[in-house]
Parts: sequence; structure tokens; C-alpha cells
Amino acid sequence: MEGQDDPKPGADAHEPTHADIYGEDGVIRASFLAHIGAAIADRDTLTLKQDVGHLHQSELGDLLEALLPEQRRALVDLLGADFDFSSLTEVDEAIRLEIVDALPNAQIAQAVQELDSDDAVYILEDLDEADQDEILAQLPFTERIRLRRSLDYPEESAGRRMQTEFVAVPPFWTVGQTIDYMRDDQNLPDRFSQVFVIDPTFTLLGAVDLDKILRSKRSVKIEEVMHETRHAIPASMDQEEAAREFEQYDLLSAAVVDENERLVGVLTIDDVVDVIQQEAEEDLLRMGGVGDEELSDTVIDTSRSRVPWLLVNLVTAFLSASVISMFGATIEEMVALAALMPIVASLGGNAGTQTMTVTVRALATRDLDIYNAGRVIRREVMVGLLNGAVIATIVGLVAGFWFQNADLGFVIAAAMIINMLAAALGGILIPLFLDRLGADPAISSSIFTTMVTDVIGFFAFLGLAAWWLHLGYPPA
Amino acid sequence: MEGQDDPKPGADAHEPTHADIYGEDGVIRASFLAHIGAAIADRDTLTLKQDVGHLHQSELGDLLEALLPEQRRALVDLLGADFDFSSLTEVDEAIRLEIVDALPNAQIAQAVQELDSDDAVYILEDLDEADQDEILAQLPFTERIRLRRSLDYPEESAGRRMQTEFVAVPPFWTVGQTIDYMRDDQNLPDRFSQVFVIDPTFTLLGAVDLDKILRSKRSVKIEEVMHETRHAIPASMDQEEAAREFEQYDLLSAAVVDENERLVGVLTIDDVVDVIQQEAEEDLLRMGGVGDEELSDTVIDTSRSRVPWLLVNLVTAFLSASVISMFGATIEEMVALAALMPIVASLGGNAGTQTMTVTVRALATRDLDIYNAGRVIRREVMVGLLNGAVIATIVGLVAGFWFQNADLGFVIAAAMIINMLAAALGGILIPLFLDRLGADPAISSSIFTTMVTDVIGFFAFLGLAAWWLHLGYPPA
Repeated sequence: MEGQDDPKPGADAHEPTHADIYGEDGVIRASFLAHIGAAIADRDTLTLKQDVGHLHQSELGDLLEALLPEQRRALVDLLGADFDFSSLTEVDEAIRLEIVDALPNAQIAQAVQELDSDDAVYILEDLDEADQDEILAQLPFTERIRLRRSLDYPEESAGRRMQTEFVAVPPFWTVGQTIDYMRDDQNLPDRFSQVFVIDPTFTLLGAVDLDKILRSKRSVKIEEVMHETRHAIPASMDQEEAAREFEQYDLLSAAVVDENERLVGVLTIDDVVDVIQQEAEEDLLRMGGVGDEELSDTVIDTSRSRVPWLLVNLVTAFLSASVISMFGATIEEMVALAALMPIVASLGGNAGTQTMTVTVRALATRDLDIYNAGRVIRREVMVGLLNGAVIATIVGLVAGFWFQNADLGFVIAAAMIINMLAAALGGILIPLFLDRLGADPAISSSIFTTMVTDVIGFFAFLGLAAWWLHLGYPPA
Repeated sequence: MEGQDDPKPGADAHEPTHADIYGEDGVIRASFLAHIGAAIADRDTLTLKQDVGHLHQSELGDLLEALLPEQRRALVDLLGADFDFSSLTEVDEAIRLEIVDALPNAQIAQAVQELDSDDAVYILEDLDEADQDEILAQLPFTERIRLRRSLDYPEESAGRRMQTEFVAVPPFWTVGQTIDYMRDDQNLPDRFSQVFVIDPTFTLLGAVDLDKILRSKRSVKIEEVMHETRHAIPASMDQEEAAREFEQYDLLSAAVVDENERLVGVLTIDDVVDVIQQEAEEDLLRMGGVGDEELSDTVIDTSRSRVPWLLVNLVTAFLSASVISMFGATIEEMVALAALMPIVASLGGNAGTQTMTVTVRALATRDLDIYNAGRVIRREVMVGLLNGAVIATIVGLVAGFWFQNADLGFVIAAAMIINMLAAALGGILIPLFLDRLGADPAISSSIFTTMVTDVIGFFAFLGLAAWWLHLGYPPA
């Protein structure tokens, strides 16, 4: 795979760049992977430290995911203290656990101390409690307390995602004092974009953005330039809600406070971006009938998470079957109905899915609310009628010619319009209703919507056929 | 709707807080809306300026979306120069155009000068060219040039989304000089998190984060603390690709450069967050068979965007129908087959959708690549067989007892296993294949996957029934 376009990493002494690591398609280059694989096989720690030791955490994460399991473990061993543990926050949970479980707790404890607290929590939270306790016990007192506090907040809360390192100053300091403090203190977080203002009990008074500090004279008091933090996030707040605050108010970082309004950490936009992606992904997966799956899950786990959805679908499928079996006599008289009936159901299902998808998404982004629901429902009904008319005309003509039966064409066209209307109403009312009940419309809307379009589709088509064409009517 | 839990905005003179505006469910309170509606009806500009004039742009955007069209126009008129045009970046395109089209170009030109350039471009880009030109002609020279340059970049490019206001200094300045410059210059952007370093031709040399400046001594030269900007974004880069850079490297802002590596603007994380959301939303909508719809689109626009998908579905539905009609003689002999056949197709379709959803998402996030495709395909096949066995057992038993026919139970069970296997293979291979072809797998995977499961489901079930049960075999 090493063509002349592939820069050979390690051929000279430069650290690999993005273009060395990734191909045009954004996937790790086979040549880079082969180069690292060879270095692992040769136990060539010098090359590894040079070409892997300086990778960005996300690049190292991608590399870990591309390697084979035994290569991963060997790489972590060979790099030793040069292995950047923050890369573990960038890989699938299964791979993270596989790597961490293979390491002695003492080594994890050592590594965790080098990490920002949010990354440390991210790695620790998946371990079982005994391992967590053993690792925490080996940490210095203040770090232990900080991580323990984060871990005590519920999963997926702001408290879990926050960083406990932050810069905080009293309100009576001047801008000059604050700048001097930042110049001298070695224990500042790696990156920060605002300075918090607190009283002696750590109660949050406000915050100052760094650009504001830089634009103010040295003699100005911090309390004069600080703004009240209208958007302090309670540590127990769900991460999704916190993400929504960030989005709405274009925040870069926000103070996280405990139940007594005391500053306990800071939530930053880079963590929030991950949450936003996760949540959008969750909706998509749920609508497709899958839960919180990862590509690295085992066959058993995957099967177990998908079967319940199929079982619900089984019930609705038998419901449709029982509608069809009511019209057994009708179908016996004209077997063409059996061939045509899935068309009515299938198109109704697709139209319903279109409406439902738009509705579920609009509910998630809160674009759909009581103020426009009436208008949107009317629009969907009109679209359903319009598209129903278009599709019904085509289906009616094709079916009529196919089976040389104009009446059959009229019947399927009428059934199609009825089902498209049902699809429009089901597609919008079902998610609205589930949302009102407090259920997540992304999870179950699609199964109920297709249930409605299947049942109404079969019933309308076969019922109309029996009645109009006098086939086995009344049905048994 | 005014319960005792509803704070009454405007009852005293304080500006409305988040809790005054929004209810627990995150939707604008009916009481707040009624209050603003009444003030609009009374043409009470004093109340409006107090209660609307200070809203955050996103709050004002939500308010505009909740108002009736005539209220919106009246509100913009009544607020006059106090109307925050940046709120227009937070509303649906149709509402934005409705408001902007009602205003004279001179007023828009006036308003645009108050906005950050990225917001100005966001509003201008939807207008037709004649209006754009007329508005730009009324702007001061430098602003006109800047906005024109942004507008000249392709839609959805980094150049369109960038802000052209930034702080840039020469490399030989000291930290002290830089701080003094920021203290004195009044034309700095509202918010910024890094200072760029350029040469006299505006070629980008590097960047310094503000926290780095604050931590350095005044006498230190900027070139000593700057880092090379490895992540400068070409202005012509697609916004989605730019967003991926931000995500991968946890950037807060990035320099945007033209084809000669000259600094032309800065892209910030808050714009990127919107892009990330948009892109995730696009995938979800495409998988549901809808395009770039907005809730405010008209019936005709909505219908037009959804019909093509239904037409494609029509073709695949007739394909399934023709498979069924091959087995007309079989169905005539045992009409129970007509009732049961949609079960095989429906469950296959759902299982296929599960696999396809996971695959499409993993392709979008680049979690699925040549290094794990083989493993994931094997996993999906195993899951398909396992779930197929579970579902086939249940379906076979229920169908056998329902129609008192054990052979029919065996036939449907066997057909179900075959179709679940087809679903697994189709659900993963179809998106992989479309992706390899350069097509967007989110758009067409679901229609092809259900085509495969419908055709194979009907064929396997009816074919096995004809052969095993000797019903009208060989088929006509």
C-alpha cells in the first residue's frame, strides 16, 4: 500500500503530521499502521516514542482502534510512561476496558494523576467499584477527594463531565494582581477561558472572560469587570440539559456549582460538543430500533439489545396478519389483492416515517411546541392528501392496467389516499402524544406509526375491494 | 394559563430572566407570550424595549418563532433600532426571509453594520442578489469588502461561516505591547480566545491563546510563546470538514486562510456547534426519507421534497408485488400464506434497518473503516442468525398453532432465518457499498435495504411454501 503519495513516517526524524497519519478519506493510512505495527513487533521503543509519543490524544485513539487487540496491549506496555492515557477517552468503551483491565491498578493510579480530572473520571467511571477504590486510595488526598466527588454525581450529569481544575480569585483583587497570580502559579489548568470570582466559602460571585481581563487596566478591581454568572450549571443537572444551555447562550465554559451555590468545577465546550454529538446520535439510533450500541460490542450484547424491538414488531406484525386473515375469502376470489396489498402498506409506512422523522426531530430541538403544533398538523394533513393524490393516481393506473381491471385501480387508489392520510396523522400525532406522556418519541414512534399504516392500509384496501368488487362480502 | 407558579414578567421593572420566559419544559411560557402580545397590540414600546430589548438573541429568536406573522412584523417595527438583528440567525429560514423582506434595504444596511460579520453574512446570504448588492452598496468600504469576500466563498464553506473581525499582531511585539494594544484598541471583536501572529502581508505565522499571554512575562516576545497553527482552515473547506477538525483537536477557534495562506478570518466553536447539530440532523432526516425541510416550509415545498422518495418506494413496492404475483397459484391454494407473508417481510425490514442504522452512523463518524469492516460484517451476520433463530422459533410456533399446520410453521421459520440473514448482509453491505461509490449512505440505504428484505422475504416464504407444501408448484 506504500505508494509514492504516501509520506513514510519515521523515514526521517520529523514527528508524523495529520497527512502522514490519515489518508484523503480521513481513515488512518495503511502505511502508517504497518509502520507502527512493525515497530511494535520489533519492540522498537525508540521509534514508537518518536512517532506515537507525540500524537494528539484523538490521533492516538484512532490508532488504538485500528490496531489488533494484542498490538494495543503491547503498544501501551512499550510506551510505558509515554503512553497518553487521555487517548482512552477517544476510543470505544469495550477497547478502553480491555486496555485498562490489563494494567495493574498502581499504574492506572499513576497515570490518572497526570490527567485533567474530567478525563480521569471518564476512565474511572467504567471500572467496577473495587478497582475504583483501590486506584483512588493510591492518589494524593486532594485529588482523591475531587475525583470521588465527581464520581458521586449521577451518570451523565454535569458533575461527571466537569473539570475540577479552575482559576478562581476574590472580588477585591485587581486585574494586575490576577495577571501576576496567573503568571506565577504553576498549578493552573492546561487551558482556560475565564476566571471565576468567589468568596472565602467558595460561593460563586461571578466570572470574567480572559479577553476582558486583557482589555482592562491593571488597577481595575475584578468585581468591576466581572459579570454575574447567569448560567451557572448545577452539578446534578443532566449533561443534555447543560449542553442545551451552552448552545442557547453560545457559552465557551460555565461554572458548575453544588447545591449550596459553591463552585466545584467548570464545564467546557469541548466536552459539551461530545455530548451534543452523542445525543443526536442517540435519537438516530433509537429511531432505527437500536439502543446504545458500540461497534466493539459482542454478538451476544448486540443481539440482546436488538431483540426486544423485534419482539414488539412481531406483535404488530401478527396484528396486521389477523386483519388480512379476516379477508381470506376475498383474497381467494381475487388473488391479485395479495400481490397489491403490500404496496398500500409500504407506501403508507414510508409517508408515515417521513412525517414522524420531522416531528421527532422538531420535538428534540424544541422547534415544535404548542404555538405551532396546530399549524404543523394542518400542513402534514395537506401534504398527506397531496402526496396521496399523486401516488394514488400512479398506483391506480399501473394496477388497473396490470390486472386489466379498472375497478381494482379505483379501489387501490382510494385505499392509498386513506392510508396516506392515516400516515400523516399517525406520523405527527403519535410522537406528539408520546412526548406529552413523557416518553421519548424517538424510541417507539416508528413502531406505532407503521402499525397504524399497516393495519389501516390492509383494512382499507381489502375492505374496499370486498365491498366495491363484491368479493366474499361481507367478510367472514 | 397564568398559575401561581408563573412569575408575571413586567409586573415589576426587572428584565425577564430565563425562568420568566421559559416554562419547565423549555417552551416559551404562555403568560410571557400573552404579555408581549398585549404590549404589541397596545403599541407599548416602553414595555417592549424593557422586556424584549435586552433578551439574548436566542431568546428573542424563540419569541419571534412563537409569535404570529403580523405580531413579528409589528414587534420589529416597534423596537426600531433596539431590535437585535442577530436574533434572525436563530429562526427558521422562512421566518427570517419574511421579516427581512418586509424591511427597507436601507434599514437592513444600517442593522448589518452593528452585527458580527458572520451573523451579517448569515442574514445576507439568503437574499437575492439585487437586494444583496443594494445593501452592500450602502456600507462603508472595508465592511463592504469583507462581507463581499465572505459571500464569494461557496455556500456551507468555512469562508461563509467565519468572522472577519480578529486580533492579529506581528511576531516581534512583546507580550506587554500586545496587552497594551488590546487595552487601547476599541475595534476589537466582542469575544476572542486567541491572538493571531502575522507578517506584513497578512501571512499567518502562528497563534497564541489568551491564557498563554496572561501567563507570560511582559518582556517576552510573541514569537517565543506562539504555537504554529497546525489547524489553519482553508476558507474554501466545507463546513462539515472544518467541524470535524474542531472536534478532533478540541479547538475553540481556528484561523481561516485564503489560498495564499493569508489570514482572512476566524472560525469559532459556537458556529461549529451549530454545524455539528445540522449535520447530525441531516443524517437523521435523510434516513427518514426527507430532505432539508424546515417546520415553516409550505405545503407545496414539503410535498415536492418528499414525493421523489415515495416514487422510488413505489418502484420497489411493485417489484415486491411482482414477486408475490409469481406465486398466485400457491396463495390460491392456501390463503393463510397471504396473511403471514407480511410478517416475514416486516421483521426482515426492521432487522435490516437496525443494522443499517448502526452502519450509516458509524460511517458518518468514521468509526467504521477498512480495519474493522470485516469484523463488523461477521458480527452482524452472527447477530442476524441468532436473532433470526429467536424470532423464527416464535413465529413458527404461533403460525403453526394458529393455522393448525406444523409444516406451515416450519416453512415460515425457515423463511424468517433466511430473511434475517439477508437483512444483516443488506443492512451492512448496502451502506458500505454506497459509501465506497461516493454516495451518501444516509440517503438511499434504507430504501435498498427494505427492497432486499421485502423481495427475499416474499420469495423465500412463498417459494418454500410452494415447494415444501406442494402448493401450485412449480409456480406459474
